[in-house]
Order: sequence, then C-alpha cells, then structure tokens
Amino acid sequence: MKVAVMGYGTVGSGVVEVIEHHSDIIPKRTGGKTLEISHILDLRDFPNDPHRDLFTKDFNDILNDEETKIVAETMGGINPAFDFTMKLLKAGKSVVTSNKELVAQRGLELLQAAEESGANYLFEASVGGGIPIIRPLCQCLAANYIEGIAGILNGTTNFILTMMIEQGMSFDEALKIAQEKGYAEKDPTADVEGHDACRKVCILASLAFGKHVYPNQVETEGITNISLEDVSYIENAGGVIKLLGQIKYISDDEIAAFVSPAVVYNGSQLASVKDVFNSILVRGDAVGDVCFYGPGAGKLPTASAVVADIIDCAKHTDRKKIFGWGPGSEDYVVDYKERIEMPFYVRAKASPSEINSRFADVKFLSRKGQPSDEVAFITDIMTENKLNEKLDGINVINTIKVTNY
Amino acid sequence: MKVAVMGYGTVGSGVVEVIEHHSDIIPKRTGGKTLEISHILDLRDFPNDPHRDLFTKDFNDILNDEETKIVAETMGGINPAFDFTMKLLKAGKSVVTSNKELVAQRGLELLQAAEESGANYLFEASVGGGIPIIRPLCQCLAANYIEGIAGILNGTTNFILTMMIEQGMSFDEALKIAQEKGYAEKDPTADVEGHDACRKVCILASLAFGKHVYPNQVETEGITNISLEDVSYIENAGGVIKLLGQIKYISDDEIAAFVSPAVVYNGSQLASVKDVFNSILVRGDAVGDVCFYGPGAGKLPTASAVVADIIDCAKHTDRKKIFGWGPGSEDYVVDYKERIEMPFYVRAKASPSEINSRFADVKFLSRKGQPSDEVAFITDIMTENKLNEKLDGINVINTIKVTNY
Repeated sequence: MKVAVMGYGTVGSGVVEVIEHHSDIIPKRTGGKTLEISHILDLRDFPNDPHRDLFTKDFNDILNDEETKIVAETMGGINPAFDFTMKLLKAGKSVVTSNKELVAQRGLELLQAAEESGANYLFEASVGGGIPIIRPLCQCLAANYIEGIAGILNGTTNFILTMMIEQGMSFDEALKIAQEKGYAEKDPTADVEGHDACRKVCILASLAFGKHVYPNQVETEGITNISLEDVSYIENAGGVIKLLGQIKYISDDEIAAFVSPAVVYNGSQLASVKDVFNSILVRGDAVGDVCFYGPGAGKLPTASAVVADIIDCAKHTDRKKIFGWGPGSEDYVVDYKERIEMPFYVRAKASPSEINSRFADVKFLSRKGQPSDEVAFITDIMTENKLNEKLDGINVINTIKVTNY
Repeated sequence: MKVAVMGYGTVGSGVVEVIEHHSDIIPKRTGGKTLEISHILDLRDFPNDPHRDLFTKDFNDILNDEETKIVAETMGGINPAFDFTMKLLKAGKSVVTSNKELVAQRGLELLQAAEESGANYLFEASVGGGIPIIRPLCQCLAANYIEGIAGILNGTTNFILTMMIEQGMSFDEALKIAQEKGYAEKDPTADVEGHDACRKVCILASLAFGKHVYPNQVETEGITNISLEDVSYIENAGGVIKLLGQIKYISDDEIAAFVSPAVVYNGSQLASVKDVFNSILVRGDAVGDVCFYGPGAGKLPTASAVVADIIDCAKHTDRKKIFGWGPGSEDYVVDYKERIEMPFYVRAKASPSEINSRFADVKFLSRKGQPSDEVAFITDIMTENKLNEKLDGINVINTIKVTNY
C-alpha cells in the first residue's frame, strides 16, 4: 500500500526509515500487505537524500493520488497541518500523526470528519512518543471507569529535574545540558512551562472521558520555579519533584485537569522514572493502577508509533476506530483550586510556631544549610484556595502539590 | 449482544460483575451495543446467586444458542476447556479467555480454528492479568524488531520475594503470609516453581516472534532456593532478586526463553515492582525499552481484561484479529546455557584467592554476619555452561543469573 509522509523533520524522516528498515516484518503484521512511500511533502530541498525523487512541495500531489490511501502527518503545528489533514480525511484517506498540538486543539473536528468519510485518524505517537498508551487506554481498559490519570509527559523537563535531583545541578545548568544533548530546544518555553505536557493531558482526558478538553481549559505551571532547596526538602520527605499532568474524574459532567510540579513519594511507580523517559499511570475502578513507561520522544521511538498506526490502517482498510471523543463544554473542566483536595509542600520565611498556629497537622522537613528563618512542611489535605487563605500574610517562597499517584 | 461465561470461579464471577457494573459505559465503547449474560456454565450449584436462572451444566446450551456469539472461558486448565473452546470457535463464536495454561499449550490450534471460521480467540487476560500487554505488543510495537522481553509475571512469587527483601522474612514465613492473604494456593507449586510464569513466557514469545513456544521448551526454575543470605549479598551489589521470565531473539529460527530468579539492578524499572504487582519490559529496535506495570492477578483486574476483549469482539463483529502466531519447532528454543552470555551471582564456600584463580574479573560482595569461609561475587559475562566449568570442584551454595533489563 502507498503511504505519503507530510513533513520530513525528525519524526517524518524516522517514519520513512522505520518503514524501509522493517519491510520484511511489516507484511506479517498487516496480513500480507507491504508499505511503500509514494510522496514526501516538505517545502525544504533535500538534494542528497536517497528519496529525492519522492519529494513534492505541492500538497495536491498527495490529495489527488488515488493510490495513496494512508498519510503520515509529521509536520507539527496547527497550520497548514489542520487544513491538509481535513482535506485528506474528507477525501477518505486515513491520516496518522504525532502532532499533539493539532490533536489537542482540533482533534474533535478531525475525528468527526474521519467518521463521516469512513477514514481513520490515529495518533498513538501524540502522547508518550513510543509508549503504547492510546490503544491500551481506549481498548484494554474499556471495561473500567477511569478514576484518574497522572503522567510524566515531557522528557525534557524530566531530564532537567533528574539532573537537579541526582547531580545537584541548578535549573539553568541542567537546561543548558539538555540543550547540548538535543533534548531541549533553543527556545525551551513549550517544554519548561508545561505547554507540551498540557497538550498531552488534553488528549488523554478527551479519550478517557469522551469530551474534548482544550489546552486553555487546563491550568498549566512549569518547572522554572523549582529550586535545589525544594529538591532537598522533598528528598527529606521521602519523595521527588516531577512535572505531572493530572486528570481526575468528578462526574460525567465535570473533571479536573492540570499540569504542575508535584511531589511524588518514592513508593510510586512514577518516582523511579528518570532522564528523558515518560510514564503514564491510569487508575481504573476494576483494574486498579496500571503504568506505561518508555521513551516519550526521539526520532525512532516516535516514528515507530506512527508506523504502528500506519500498519493498523493497512491491516483493516474497511474499519473505523471508535474513540467516543465528543464535544466538550466551557465548564466541563472545573477550577481545581476550589474543588480538588490534596496535601501541599510549602517553603516559607516563617517560624514553626507561626505555621503551627495556622495548620492543624503539618510535617516539618529539613535540609542541609537550612536558614533559621526558613521552614518547609507538608500540609494535610485541603484545596489550593484554602491553602492560600491559610498562608495569607506569610512570606511564602514556594508551594508544590503532593500527588496521591 | 449475548455473552456466555464458562466457569464461575474468581475470574468468571468477576466477568459477570464487571459487565453488569459497567453497563452504562460499555455501549459507548462498543459503538452502541449492550452486553447481556445469556448463560453461565458451571458444574457447581449457586442456589443463592442472583444469576441462578442463567446457570447450566450442559455446554450444549451455549454451543447451540445462536444468539450467543461471544463466550468467556474462565474455567482454567486444559480439559474440558480445550474441547469446549474448539467447538465454539468452529461454530463461529468468538472466545475470550484468561486461561494461560490453555493458550500456552494449545494456542496455535485454537487460533487456527478461529481463523478458519472467522471468529476471534482473544486472551489479553492470560498474561499480566489486568495489565494491557497483548495488544500493545502486537499492535503498538508492530513496527519494531523485538529484541527481548523480560517480565515479572507472577504476583505470588513477587510478593514472597518482596517480603524477603523488605521485611527480612524467610521464604517459608513469606509463603505462609501469601497463603493467608489469598495470594498463594494451598499447593503453591505452580507459582513458586515458576510454571505459571513459564506459561506466560510461552504466550509472549509466541506473539512476539510468530512461532509457538511450548512450556516444555522453556527451562524453568522457581524461587525455593533463594535464601535471605542471597538477598543480603545482592542488596550489597545494588540490586534485588526477582523471578523473571526472559526471552531473547537470536534469529528468525532461534530464540532463548527461560524462567529463573535473576538479579535486577536498582536502576531498572523492574527493580521497583513490589508485592503482587507484575511488570513486563519489551525491548524493540526502534522504540527502545517500554514497560507495562500493574496488577498481574486478582478478580476484578483480570476480569476487566476479559471484558475488554469481549467489548472488542462486540465492537467489530466482522473482523478477525491477526496475531501471526504460527507453528513452532523442536529446536526453535535453544539451550540458553550454551548460547546466552550474561554475568552471574555466585555464593560458595571458598576463599577469594580460589575464586580469583578461576575468574578473571569478579566483584566480591559482602553481608552482615558473613562467615569467613563464604564468598559471594558477580562474574563477568559468560555462558552458564562456562560458569559451571569454572566452578567445577568448588562448593557452590547458589548461583543466580544477572539480567541486563
């Protein structure tokens, strides 16, 4: 079967490589069909690439090629990826993608277009890179009420936090090394401010509960405020700081979803996830906690997930995937600060007695070199609004949520 | 759609419970179809069960019911489960199962029967209980050459080892607690001798590489020889002892597969898997290492995986799953002792100089209360046959494989 690739960057070139390198096993997994690259769409020139005869700068070459029924969209971004994908789906071609921004922002419209034309829109690679998560969540856990999801969804920030925790590096030093290793972009905003994790939270929440959650509904906080002092106190508490995307079911009409640094205790499967690895924990009413771990990014891991979706399209050309992803609504994602109770880590310039006079039950923490006017502690469970009320007038340095995953 | 359940033990009754308890969400995941229990086959009487009107002792009631197109086989064992399943598949009914013994022993014949009649034979629950592993392995990782698999595949033995490692309990004490908690059977042989893990290794190997591996081809060693002294030495080495099922790809015509205690270093995702939890690590050429963690047994976790398979059958009634699971052969699984190199942990009554005279490169270990005539060490990599040659004449107390997962 003929497959086109749109966008010949890291993931797109990986898709071509994975298809060619696995040409002997792919027919075993498609029920006998081979995959052949028909077109590669990219505005750039690749004069020395062995596939140079396949390149085109005209999207219509793909749209109008009746033999090309499967297209990998690895361009990233909203435009022109949305327009291209929509046209392909309306033309009855299946599209598979690693483009989390597009799925998070416009997934519903694209899935509806696929539904209408009988094509598939698949996006296993959009969350967790190479980690199988979309199919397990939608199919293997189908007989569960999902109670919550928590994930380390961004490899760059997990690498930076690992360097801070294990090597005692500052955030700035760790970011510099992440950039040198190619884990972080020159402009690291999307990663370190949590936007990338936020998009993945939207996709997971939309799939788990069937209503589209948009990025602007998910309150998002990055890791730029985390200091080595916080790392030390939290080590003393028996945990580590991770950037977590968290989703909590409240009712069919309400969920909570947020991205933030969080204290994860060492007993959790999420605590041992280091470097650029990702892990997603899903809590179901029947199954309990299951966890999916692996490389959350990278050329070949991500490409292998895109190609798995291509194989799925090739195997069952007449079958539509049912995702049950419907419209969202403005008040579907609640204000978690008002609604969700949890413990908090707090670091402040205050005395223990001041803290004890405001909090019924706190666990004080210590660190090497702790100044005499600094306290750090873990509260009992309360909403974030309640916490802020209790801290009113206190010189707070940092507060971090404590997760129960 | 009507569903019959064969075997009303722990998992079978869980299947009925999960279907009934999730009746509101199941139609969302089947594309609108509801599930209804039509028959429950069990030779026992359940006079007070709310489903008493559904019970039958006659398998033909299910076989001859034209409206029942999906059957859950949760009887366990080979007979009569094999005969019943074969007849149902030949009649065009899909069968889903948690019966690892049957799938490991006769999976190929049953899959071939399903293929011929256009029915499905699905067995997500047969490995890892509630953990999604079969679909991820077959679908999400389809664009990878699988290089190896290592899994903690038995919850009972993992619980016993956890108690030994964390509480300093002896094997016998830990087994007793496992029995009191209902994790271990009165006759714990199948668990502690590794037979249960062996069946799961067969299923994983057959799926990953497409040739049926039978239990008698997989050399299997349990945990009854593990002592607290070994636990201490291995803690000193920076690792833990786990009962691992390991599969290694050699060529399309040869694999290695074995079940044994193994030293897992603390950096591994498998090291932090405690109590009755399971975890399966899959190493692919493109994706690298991915890991699947969760409850490996238990009524509702296992039942939820069976029901997920039922939902899959109900959703796509006209589609056959392609597993690519073909015939095996006698010499397909090699003698790993001759072919696979790895480091080993050795404990012996010997002096360090005796050991140094036989091994080029060893790392000696220590423990509290170590007798002066006892040594323990980790070797460099070699085959197990080579190891035994080098140890010839030494008074060896125990040897344990060291894994690279």
